[in-house]
Amino acid sequence: MDGGGIQAAAAAAKGKGVDGEAAVTLEELRKRMADFAKERDWDQFHSPRNLLLAMVGEVGELSEIFQWRGEVPRGLPGWEARETEHLGEELADVLLYLVRLSDMCGVDLGKAALRKIGLNAIKHPVGKRHNTSSKKFARCSGSNGNAGSTTGDDKNEAVKEGDKEGALIG
Amino acid sequence: MDGGGIQAAAAAAKGKGVDGEAAVTLEELRKRMADFAKERDWDQFHSPRNLLLAMVGEVGELSEIFQWRGEVPRGLPGWEARETEHLGEELADVLLYLVRLSDMCGVDLGKAALRKIGLNAIKHPVGKRHNTSSKKFARCSGSNGNAGSTTGDDKNEAVKEGDKEGALIG
Amino acid sequence: MDGGGIQAAAAAAKGKGVDGEAAVTLEELRKRMADFAKERDWDQFHSPRNLLLAMVGEVGELSEIFQWRGEVPRGLPGWEARETEHLGEELADVLLYLVRLSDMCGVDLGKAALRKIGLNAIKHPVGKRHNTSSKKFARCSGSNGNAGSTTGDDKNEAVKEGDKEGALIG
Amino acid sequence: MDGGGIQAAAAAAKGKGVDGEAAVTLEELRKRMADFAKERDWDQFHSPRNLLLAMVGEVGELSEIFQWRGEVPRGLPGWEARETEHLGEELADVLLYLVRLSDMCGVDLGKAALRKIGLNAIKHPVGKRHNTSSKKFARCSGSNGNAGSTTGDDKNEAVKEGDKEGALIG
Repeated sequence: MDGGGIQAAAAAAKGKGVDGEAAVTLEELRKRMADFAKERDWDQFHSPRNLLLAMVGEVGELSEIFQWRGEVPRGLPGWEARETEHLGEELADVLLYLVRLSDMCGVDLGKAALRKIGLNAIKHPVGKRHNTSSKKFARCSGSNGNAGSTTGDDKNEAVKEGDKEGALIG
Repeated sequence: MDGGGIQAAAAAAKGKGVDGEAAVTLEELRKRMADFAKERDWDQFHSPRNLLLAMVGEVGELSEIFQWRGEVPRGLPGWEARETEHLGEELADVLLYLVRLSDMCGVDLGKAALRKIGLNAIKHPVGKRHNTSSKKFARCSGSNGNAGSTTGDDKNEAVKEGDKEGALIG
Repeated sequence: MDGGGIQAAAAAAKGKGVDGEAAVTLEELRKRMADFAKERDWDQFHSPRNLLLAMVGEVGELSEIFQWRGEVPRGLPGWEARETEHLGEELADVLLYLVRLSDMCGVDLGKAALRKIGLNAIKHPVGKRHNTSSKKFARCSGSNGNAGSTTGDDKNEAVKEGDKEGALIG
Repeated sequence: MDGGGIQAAAAAAKGKGVDGEAAVTLEELRKRMADFAKERDWDQFHSPRNLLLAMVGEVGELSEIFQWRGEVPRGLPGWEARETEHLGEELADVLLYLVRLSDMCGVDLGKAALRKIGLNAIKHPVGKRHNTSSKKFARCSGSNGNAGSTTGDDKNEAVKEGDKEGALIG
């Protein structure tokens, strides 16, 4: 949508790029899902937790595509067209439930995403060297009781290994 | 973006609705994430499986928000503003990794989503009564060996309980 | 295994209770999975991340069983025998991959579980009133950079809503 | 617990191996979790779906440990002791919620696991060559409507890519 002139504007107004390809908005997906559910009288099933569990189910199916492959290079070289198509379907499934879940929670997903990108940019300034040595033994001292938990919660006390590793490598 | 006229078109051309609100496109998020990673030299970490596991991590955080609440009504009545804001951040996190994962796999997520909505509409025609009795004992007879699996895979053999239930209720 | 005498001891030595029912140990499952993989020459596929993604896939299937049901009461009243059987299979699938993943990581899962129960007991003393008011605005001030992350990480900064809710209710 | 004699039997009767190490049974974990919840009056929070979402949260934390590492070799060479300890805690967290979830659903997890291993052995006979060519285009023709689903369900129609790949490699 970086074309100029009235043609681009008109095309964009229809949610399409100048070349006719869709510039799909989250709002469009939200509306389509809402219509889809309404037409089938499915609103009754679309409680937040139902949708969340449905999304977890789709994340599971997405994971199955990658489960026995070992590390997969970017761009998926060597994948057959139908494998990539299947992948697209599973990625879409996760997105569609995510969009619907956000809608049912009253969250504007697109706005939330832009806001989060802004927060991330503040948290991770460009050009700042990630000093991992100081983080390595960083612990959060915040108390964090959690009734109902049978496993406890060591997120705040334990070093965040995953983050640390990312930082170490980065 | 349902306003008419040149104003709407111009606004849309900038990726915004007439009222100034963002009509966030998946392409915009994709590009922002790509720039974000490039500026920080993080492309090296963004292999498909790394991103998938990062997304699973975010799905876990999203689930934690809902874990001790029991059933949650639509619209989240009674939630504090900051709880909803936190929820928006977790929903956004899942989306951002999903967008980035799709990009690294060479999948056009918006296009895939529209395509999947079309397939779903074919699979679930409006007004068609969901006959669950015939499905109740439906089994898939397709053979489906899976080396590497230590748990087996009863998806195709077992009745899909979740689906069946959805159908039963629906 | 709460029977006394030599009979119980002998039965237990065989990994069974006095009444003949299996007292299944994690070590037995670990060994069975190891033998299973070895006999099929599947060790080559069982890298930690492959197994983790396979487990995520099974968690997804487990979630599907619960996805359209709304809140489900304890004991699953009204479920058909075959629904519960299917549930048992999905629960088992998650366990089996978890056991295998632990084994491939060199972690003694049973020992880790007992240790964690001990840690949880220290963290959540019996009879201690869960004071949520002090926690409500508790934040962790620990710095926590994470290169590679495109979504940031607000776990330590954000109030842990899920935990807080658990605590609030509790 | 393959030692013989009265010593082994006595040790086993206490749930320990001859060498004094714990032979942790799923029943023991189940009972400990039940006592833990009862002592803290937490039974009220431990509905099946609450526990399932809590487990998904723990799977997310487990995934975070592996998210930026790329492929990880068996045995985790080069990991620091405290990284492995943290991993053990997350593996344990998943197990403990799984055990508790099974208990609240009335499922005997150990029995279900042994049963599933038996089913897997039937499904994947030792020495049987995995003929993937015949499976490659295998499709399941079983109808599978699912009301409530907004993403559709292509599990039975689509080739199971993950399984196929496992089979292809195997």
